[in-house]
Parts: sequence; structure tokens; C-alpha cells
Amino acid sequence: MYGPFEQHGQDYWQLPTGPKNTICDVAGVKVGNAQNMRGTARTGVTALLPMEDNIYAHKLPAGCAVINGFGKSAGLVQVAELGEIETPILFTNTFGVGTGAQALIKHAIAHNPQIGRQGPTVNPVVFECNDGRVNDIQGVGIDEALVETAMGQADTDFAQGTVGAGTGMCTFGFAGGIGSASRLVDLDGQNFTLGAFVLSNFGQRSSLRVFGQSPAHYRGEDSADKGSIIILMATDLPMDSLQLTRLSRRAGAALGRLGSHFGHQSGDIALAFSTQNPRSLECDALVTQQRVADRYMDKIFMAGVEATENAILNALWHGEPHKGYDGSVLPRWRDMFEKG
Amino acid sequence: MYGPFEQHGQDYWQLPTGPKNTICDVAGVKVGNAQNMRGTARTGVTALLPMEDNIYAHKLPAGCAVINGFGKSAGLVQVAELGEIETPILFTNTFGVGTGAQALIKHAIAHNPQIGRQGPTVNPVVFECNDGRVNDIQGVGIDEALVETAMGQADTDFAQGTVGAGTGMCTFGFAGGIGSASRLVDLDGQNFTLGAFVLSNFGQRSSLRVFGQSPAHYRGEDSADKGSIIILMATDLPMDSLQLTRLSRRAGAALGRLGSHFGHQSGDIALAFSTQNPRSLECDALVTQQRVADRYMDKIFMAGVEATENAILNALWHGEPHKGYDGSVLPRWRDMFEKG
Amino acid sequence: MYGPFEQHGQDYWQLPTGPKNTICDVAGVKVGNAQNMRGTARTGVTALLPMEDNIYAHKLPAGCAVINGFGKSAGLVQVAELGEIETPILFTNTFGVGTGAQALIKHAIAHNPQIGRQGPTVNPVVFECNDGRVNDIQGVGIDEALVETAMGQADTDFAQGTVGAGTGMCTFGFAGGIGSASRLVDLDGQNFTLGAFVLSNFGQRSSLRVFGQSPAHYRGEDSADKGSIIILMATDLPMDSLQLTRLSRRAGAALGRLGSHFGHQSGDIALAFSTQNPRSLECDALVTQQRVADRYMDKIFMAGVEATENAILNALWHGEPHKGYDGSVLPRWRDMFEKG
Amino acid sequence: MYGPFEQHGQDYWQLPTGPKNTICDVAGVKVGNAQNMRGTARTGVTALLPMEDNIYAHKLPAGCAVINGFGKSAGLVQVAELGEIETPILFTNTFGVGTGAQALIKHAIAHNPQIGRQGPTVNPVVFECNDGRVNDIQGVGIDEALVETAMGQADTDFAQGTVGAGTGMCTFGFAGGIGSASRLVDLDGQNFTLGAFVLSNFGQRSSLRVFGQSPAHYRGEDSADKGSIIILMATDLPMDSLQLTRLSRRAGAALGRLGSHFGHQSGDIALAFSTQNPRSLECDALVTQQRVADRYMDKIFMAGVEATENAILNALWHGEPHKGYDGSVLPRWRDMFEKG
Repeated sequence: MYGPFEQHGQDYWQLPTGPKNTICDVAGVKVGNAQNMRGTARTGVTALLPMEDNIYAHKLPAGCAVINGFGKSAGLVQVAELGEIETPILFTNTFGVGTGAQALIKHAIAHNPQIGRQGPTVNPVVFECNDGRVNDIQGVGIDEALVETAMGQADTDFAQGTVGAGTGMCTFGFAGGIGSASRLVDLDGQNFTLGAFVLSNFGQRSSLRVFGQSPAHYRGEDSADKGSIIILMATDLPMDSLQLTRLSRRAGAALGRLGSHFGHQSGDIALAFSTQNPRSLECDALVTQQRVADRYMDKIFMAGVEATENAILNALWHGEPHKGYDGSVLPRWRDMFEKG
Repeated sequence: MYGPFEQHGQDYWQLPTGPKNTICDVAGVKVGNAQNMRGTARTGVTALLPMEDNIYAHKLPAGCAVINGFGKSAGLVQVAELGEIETPILFTNTFGVGTGAQALIKHAIAHNPQIGRQGPTVNPVVFECNDGRVNDIQGVGIDEALVETAMGQADTDFAQGTVGAGTGMCTFGFAGGIGSASRLVDLDGQNFTLGAFVLSNFGQRSSLRVFGQSPAHYRGEDSADKGSIIILMATDLPMDSLQLTRLSRRAGAALGRLGSHFGHQSGDIALAFSTQNPRSLECDALVTQQRVADRYMDKIFMAGVEATENAILNALWHGEPHKGYDGSVLPRWRDMFEKG
Repeated sequence: MYGPFEQHGQDYWQLPTGPKNTICDVAGVKVGNAQNMRGTARTGVTALLPMEDNIYAHKLPAGCAVINGFGKSAGLVQVAELGEIETPILFTNTFGVGTGAQALIKHAIAHNPQIGRQGPTVNPVVFECNDGRVNDIQGVGIDEALVETAMGQADTDFAQGTVGAGTGMCTFGFAGGIGSASRLVDLDGQNFTLGAFVLSNFGQRSSLRVFGQSPAHYRGEDSADKGSIIILMATDLPMDSLQLTRLSRRAGAALGRLGSHFGHQSGDIALAFSTQNPRSLECDALVTQQRVADRYMDKIFMAGVEATENAILNALWHGEPHKGYDGSVLPRWRDMFEKG
Repeated sequence: MYGPFEQHGQDYWQLPTGPKNTICDVAGVKVGNAQNMRGTARTGVTALLPMEDNIYAHKLPAGCAVINGFGKSAGLVQVAELGEIETPILFTNTFGVGTGAQALIKHAIAHNPQIGRQGPTVNPVVFECNDGRVNDIQGVGIDEALVETAMGQADTDFAQGTVGAGTGMCTFGFAGGIGSASRLVDLDGQNFTLGAFVLSNFGQRSSLRVFGQSPAHYRGEDSADKGSIIILMATDLPMDSLQLTRLSRRAGAALGRLGSHFGHQSGDIALAFSTQNPRSLECDALVTQQRVADRYMDKIFMAGVEATENAILNALWHGEPHKGYDGSVLPRWRDMFEKG
């Protein structure tokens, strides 16, 4: 169930995974990766499509949490105000955010020609981490074609580790960027799914705690905690924007479990959305919808924390080091973990 | 003192203006405009330089307030977290934000080659309003060269009204975008200056209240409130980040004075910075600085509200209508005001 | 329609009032006043009952906004977290908050004996302003019996001005505390009501702007802005917690309209609730409810701003000065307004 | 150094403790406990005095974080607005908050007779957890005399575990409430101290992770996570309010380390203050002060997380179960931990 972490996971986790143990266990969600390895570039883009439909015309309820705001993501101000997302969600390096935003705007206009004319504009959501330890980030390496490729690749199966936006990322001093996991939530016999997806580039090696392995185990050549981590959660539970905001804040608990202190220079940001209760452009004045009762929230929060923790470990597990632009190579966590 | 509003201003305002009655009364601040009027474009960029120096190496204390978050500005998450700005501040149309951010990153790297290599990355701050009533915004019209032009034009004298980023903007249904004003603050005989600068594109014509002119005066052909307004305040008062955050929130009082209800689709966002206590990259562990005592805050808040209200009226006063991309022309407020 | 402000109101306001032009135009809402005038006390309590029912067992969706947080209200942390209220709402003086909270806890336990035993505890919401200009606040003057009296008095008709919690309050330098008003909101032919209620104790006389009367009109003997204002909005529109939070923020626009700069020492706090979609302790995992579509929000926001502005003017209009504990007497605004 | 956790602590922690390993390692801080065990009461009050001086006349910079807002604490709105504290800080049960606030107001007036007369009022800060599993909370059990006793007991040595406000508290299903710890922070050879203090009443037994002991170890008879935890941090580092706000948010990382998911019904709230740069009522318009440079923040954040984690473990270690009002007795964690 917990894949490579089957044995430890049974001791540490309480909720079952979905069949894929990725965010794509939530129906409608797809993920696509594209990377640029030319020259000194070790970077990329990952696109997360929240629904099959044209999301601009069927906005989804969402909430977000800034755990530590040393970050340059785009679009959060409007997500917090309206409690909704209206574009696919992009992940890339810090200097690719502007390009990502421009690509999302063009993509939205292509499917909704009224944008900025008869209708309002569109709020692109683009997240970033700084992959500058491995990638020559001043070279940028992100263009609109790469964004299109990532969106075109989107599928319910996708690679994890040092791929897509995670190509040059570094987690607790080890190679690793993209990770995902899921948990099943049973509410009085009704089954729901919650998935987490991370772009992980945070943590100080000497602080890592995994399944009871102490930080002392990871001392030695240390790494400063100056990356970032973006956590996305998706669910088919009908949750309103405030409930999703509260869920997104639980990402912080998962970071704590692994030993993070929410590093000063780490942009630790989370966003949660529900695939239920889409908000259509065409609707009546009053819309009927469902909402999960708050008394079930503990199980949902636990699912969010476990899925996020599992997703970060998956990013570590799948990390295959690339030679960095300066010739250095990050260590591979799997080797160290398997030695115990 | 209050320029075209001398007579009414004396009844309505309590604090004196600086010599220019613009944000450039705060020493070190410069503003530059550039516009694109080619084809169906009626748009532009305005750049505000907060200091003479390389601001990345001498970050300035800042705070911000999201009065209504239906907006797509870049950089606010980090401003709120660290309480500082580290780039010039750009203003442009909604679809020019990504391009503006990329231009600011390149500008910062050109002056600070360690960015993203030996040092951390940089947080570009770019604000926007939707000028789509006048400008063909799908055509975008903003490129990095236009940003460079605006930054190169920056001076302590600058044009207001329908210029720069304000070229296609619309305030309470009238042509007008860029405005600025200032107030002097006397604290026990010591003199300080507070300036406001707006990119104004908000308000419903039938709600406008100016110096006792009732909204009824402005009824007739109405305009929906679906623009936005960005308010910047600068001061040479030594204020810490929390004090500046509190100051920036007062922009909302100024919008209220003019009749706004913080429209649903209006991205009403404010940022305040101090030119004192720059944070140098090279400094000791403990830095000595000054802070104004909180008991003087009321006079400072009043200065912020008056300067913002005056700045918006200046944007209206200087508005010279351009023919829109669809052939329509916004009315000129000055005509209506002078008739009384 | 606008009562004493009929003539000016038609020029300045756009939406019609409900039949009473108070918050009790929203079905189910009741208000009760009780005052203590013994000795040097000039203070009181006002209770607002949001529904006929036992609200603890049928919590109502709510949102709140701290416009300026120099205030000592109780209960806002949990309102912001859960987006709901679960007790009647009390208003009193700054040093009566603790007593008010204890009284609400006892009241809730009396109707819900499981509180703190089989079930969780209860979150009392108590708002305050400092009536120390008129009332001898060190003498406190609030006890649990006074709270019970106010709750017992609650009715759909109630007095405004210098009564209840507003007994010793001062608005823009004039006697006046309790005020209320309402607006009707027509959404595609369906009629809804939005009401505002204020405990008003804020504003600097020389800043007041009323229907085009300039602040200069109110200069002379000035008053510092060191009070506070609490704004409550109620509606029968089905709004979720985030929408209600956004609505509550519009109270700031109303304060601005009257000339406030959100004074440093002024606790300016707003709370909005909906009487629709009560959250029952007994319910299924998924609850079906209604939500107004965001595209109608502008009219709702305008109703909130107009009702709040009107409520503050009603507090001024009904203000009948009491002799203060130090012998001084605040001026009566109605005299000044009628002279014009 | 780490007391009962010496062996494990060396593997898991990176920073040294102060001499007492409590918050009183920060000069000037004192803590006092008082309990009420009469009849069915198993409750109490703990008072934390941030400085020797009259704090109302020498307010201290502070910041706070609401990790989960299902809580009824008093005073946070103003702490967030002004970034300062001006009273001792009280901890008690949920239904004792109002009484605690009234006691703090009287205490402040006794030392500052101008409060509410010539000067503004005072903002009492009172934190709470629900001790209703052990204490008969409907009986309340807190009066102003108990508050006075706790303040009178305040000393640099104080008891931990199930004493004072922690008498009836329950941490991860075990007896335990009051805990404290400290860490030393060396900045380029200058030594500073950061202390943490907790009122701990949170966590689900089956989620607890301690030094590599898995949650599975703690399964069996489970406890729902419906308590709360209050975390206070004090430091002699000169930090401004925004830096202290950021520090207080790190409490969430410590909760995560121990396995918490920030339970739905758990009021998880943190406050951090500095003993440096007191804000005197009498001061010049511009005050000179010191501020630690942000680039040292990581070490400070780590100190905050380690001290908080250690403080919670100390609350568990010192927990001596009292017989509850219903006859039940919580288990003692130390027994289980020592068995391993």
C-alpha cells in the first residue's frame, strides 16, 4: 500500500492509500512533466490539471496557506480572496514564474475568447522553487513551449523524483523534487479520496527525521535550509473555501514531522482544492451545493498530513541525481535509507 | 497648495502638501512612464524607483494590505513575510505582469550578479489593473523594452493622468490612471514627508463623491465597478514593517471617502515603504535603527488618507481621454467637475 | 424611507431600506438594551440575538474583519477559523468583556447542558468600545444581571442613540452609540435584506463628512479619534463564510465615507452573518445548502456599505447627551446638523 | 543538558539548553502556578510575568500565530495589530478566561491609575485550554483570588506537569499540561537565549511520535484530538514584531514533529515576545533600538522549534495523574516512555 515504505508506513500511518498512491487517485486530476537539460539547464515545468473540463468556465473551490512566505509564486492573492482556482496549476523554477503566467493567460484565452474583452481577466497560478543548486537559474531555461509540453503530457500516470519542475530540486540535501501520494477517507461508509502533490526543495540534511531515523543519522556534510516547498492537495470531498484553507494549513504539520523548522529562506506554500461544486459562469443567483460537516474534519486533516508526508518521501525515493551546472552532484537518498 | 483643488481642499483636508505635491517629495523617489499606442494598444508601464541606490543591496522596510484581492499582482507574499522590498516597483496592465517580473529579475541580476548563484533569488514587485475598456488587452502590448524605457525615464518630475500604466485606465467612469500627492507631517517640530502614488482604474460613476458633490450628480450613464486600484505610499519617517502595514491599510479609508464600496472585481491593493533604515546585505548581527513612537500614528495615518484621496483626484484631473481600441472614448472628468 | 435623512439620502444612496430600516428587518434578528446610570456609571449592555432558535445547536455562517485591531473583543479567533457564530452577540464597555463572556457561557450551558462535558465548549462573542469619556469605566458598571436584562429585552424594536452599550459613547465628538439601518437587495427578482448595527464610539470631529458637509464645518473644539466602532451585518442571503468575510470588510468603506482614517487607537471591527444554512449539531456527513453566486456580490457590498453608513448616522441622530461622570456633556449632533 | 531526554536529545536536537532549561533562562521572566482541587475541581491558573518592571508602562514587542483557531483566548487581536504585550500573560481553563481578563485589568489599574481615565485602556492576554476531561469545567473553579495567587507565586523556578493551569490537562492522551525548555543561540560569538513555555492539552495518542518511537507504539486505547495547546516563546534577542510573528509560527513545526495534525477542535496558538526594546509611555518621537539581521533567523527558528518540542516533552514527563471529576485517571506517560 505504501510502496517502498510498506513496513515503516504501517507503524507510522493510519489511513489507507488510493490505488495509485498519487494525487491522480482523485478523479479528473492529471499531471504532466517537461524538462530542459540543454547546456547548463537542469530545470523544467510540471503542470497539474485539476479537471477534464475548461476550468475557467467551471472554477473550483480552493484555499491556500502561506506557511513561510519567502517565495515568488503568482496568483495567491486572488485565490485567498475568492476561494477558487480558474487555471491549471504550474510548477517551475523561481525565474520561470512570469513566463508560466504568460503561457497560462494565452491558454485560457484560447479556450475562452471573452477574457479581457466581454469578460474579466484570468488569474494564473504558478508556483516555484529555486533550483539554483543544480540548475544554472540565471540562464532561466523556461519558455512557453516547455509549459505547453508539460500541459500536453498531463496524464493520470506521471513520473516522480528529479523530473519536470523537480529536475534540479534538492530535498533535505538529497536529489528529489516531484512527489505525490493519496489517502482514502471513509465518512460513515461513504468513500472519498484526498491526494497530495509536492514540488519539494526544502530542508536541512541534519534535521531530517524519517520513520524514527534520527537527525544525527543525517549529520556530516550539511546543507542549509534555503529551498522551498509547494504542497498541493486535491479531494473529491465537497469542502467550501474556508474548509480548504484550513486543510491547506495542515501541510505545515507534515513538514514538521520530517524535521523542518520552516526555514527563513524557504517559501513553504500550500493550496487545496475540491473537485466538487464547480462554479459555472452560467448559473442562477442561488446555487445548491454540498458541504461536508465540520465534525469529520479530523480525519480529513489527518489524510492531508499523511499524504503530504508520504509525497515528500516519494520525492526523495524517486530522486535520481543529475550532474549540476557546476559539476557537483547531490547524493541519492534511497541509498542512504536502504542502508538504514 | 492643493493645486486645482485649492478652494475645496482647504475645507476638506487638514495637512499641508509637499512642494511638488507628488510622491517625489519623499527624497530619493523617482517615477517614469512609458506607453504603447501602436495599433489597438492603449497601454503602458510606470516604474517607481524607491531609492537612488541599488535597492537589492539595501532593501527597504515595507508593508502591504489587500483591501480586495481580485487582482493579479506579483511579489506580495514575500513583502508580507519579510516586510521589505528589494526591487523597483512596476505598474502595468493585467497581462503584462509576467513580462514585468522577468524584466525586473534581469535588471536585478545585472546589478547583483550573485543572485541565484552565491546568493538567494529576487522578489520582483509588479502591480496591475485591467485597462481592457480602452486597450486591446488580449494584444498584451507590454514587452521588456517598454519596462526598460519606463525605468530609464524615472525622474522626480513625471506626468499624471492617462499616461504610462494609466494610459487606458478608467476611474469612476472617467479617463484617468496615474495620480500622486503628498502631505507634510510635523512631529514635535521635526518635519517628515509622506507621498502617495496611485494606478487608478476603479469605481462606479454613480457612487463618486467629491468635495460634497453627491453621487446623484454623477448618475446617468453608469459604469460598473470592475476595475482595480493600486496605492503606493512612501515616507521618510522611520517606520517598521508592522507600522507600514498599518499605514497601507488606511488606503481603504481614502477609497471610501470617494464613494467606493471595494467592488467585487476590483483588485484594491496598497503598499507602503519607508526610505529609512535600509537593510544592507553586509551588516552586523544587530543593527541599530530608529522607529517612530506609535502615539504619533494618527497624524501619519491622516497624511496617508489625505495623500491617497488627493492622488486619485489628481489622476482624474489629469485624465485626457484616448480613443479606445473599439472606438469608444471615456468622458473627461475635469469638464464635469469645473461645471460643478 | 431614509427617515430623518430622506432628502440627502436620495442624493447619496442607491438602495431602498427595509420597513424598519434596522437590522431587525432581517427575519429572526432581535436587539435588547440595558443601561446602568447609577452613581458615576453611564454605561450598558446591548444584546443581539441572531435567531429565534438555540443558536449553539444551529450555528450560523459568519465572517469577520479587523479594520484596526486596537480593541479587546472576545471570540474573533474562532469566528475566523470556523466561519460561524454560536452565541448571541454582546456589546458593552471595554472592561465589561470578561463579565459578558462569563454570562454568555452560563446562558449557553443553561440551554445546552452537554457543553464542556459530552460536548465541546462554547465561544462567546463580546464586542466593546471604551466609553470612558462619559462613563467612569474604572468603576466597571457591568454585571451578569445587566447582561441578562439586555438579552431579556431583545425585540424587533429597539432604541438607538445613547442607550444600552451606547449610553456613554461618542461619535465624531458627539453623543451617540447605538445605530442601525437596512437595505433591500433584489437579485433577478428575488428579494433579500441586509441589515447593519453599530456600536459607534469613533472619529475625530474635524474629520466628519456628512452628505457634503465639509470637515471644516465641524472644526472648532476638536476631539481626538481614540474610540472604536463595531459593525455587525446580518442578511437572509445564503452566503458562505468567505463571502461573509468579504462583506464584513466593506464596513471600512462606510467609515471612510464619513471621514474616518481608521484612527490608531480605534478598534474598528466588523462581523457579518447569514441567517441561512444553519449548521445543526445533528446532521449527515454531507449537508446540502445554497450559496449566492459571486457575480451578485457588488450589489450586496453596496448594501453593506450603505446600511453601515446609515446606521452610524442614525446613532448620531438619536444621540441624547448624558451628563458625564466628570460633569462634562458631549454636544448633540442633531442640533448642528439641522442648522446645516 | 536535556535532563531526562539526555540520550535521545543528543541524537535529535542541535542546540544547547540554558542552565535551567526553562523559559526563565531568559532574564526577567517568571512563572507562577496556583491550582483549585476542591470538590470536583481539578483546574488552575498559571501566570507568566515577562519582565520585572510595570509592563504596561514598558510594553514589549510581540507577535502571535493562530495555527488552529478553535480557541477562546483573549487579547490576540490587539497583539497582532500593535505588535506588543502590555500585561502579564495568564493561562487557565476555557471558562476562566473572562475572570482572568477582569483580574488583569484590575492589576493593571492598580499599578497605572490613569488607565481608562487620562489614558487608554489595557489589553489583557489570557490563554486557555479545555481541561474538561479531568476537571468539572462547568463548575468553573477559577476566581480572581486564584489569579492573584498565581501572580504572587511567580518565580524563576516553577513546577511543570499537572500543576497550575495544567492541573487537569491531557497531552496525547496522557496526564500533562505545563512544560518549558530553552535553547542558547550564538550569533557570531554573542550569546542569546530563547525559551518556550506550553500549556499543553492536545494530540491523539495514536499519533504521538517521540524520538523515533512510532505512533503504533501508542495505539490501543485511543484519545481523540480535541484539546488545544498554547505556546509562548520569550527571548532576549532584539527582534521586531514581524520577526516575532514569524518565530511564533514555528511552533507549528514542533507540533508536527510530535505527530500532531493540528486537530479540528484544537486551539493551537503561539505568542513570542522579546525582552529587548521596551516601549515606554514616555519617549521621544523617534526611538533608537536594535534589530537582529534576518540572515540569522534560521538558527533562531531552530531554537524556537527545539525549545517548544522539548517543552511539550517536559509537560509529559512531569505529568502526575490526578483523579478526574468523574473518577477516571489519565495514564502517566513517563511509565510508558521508560519501558521504551
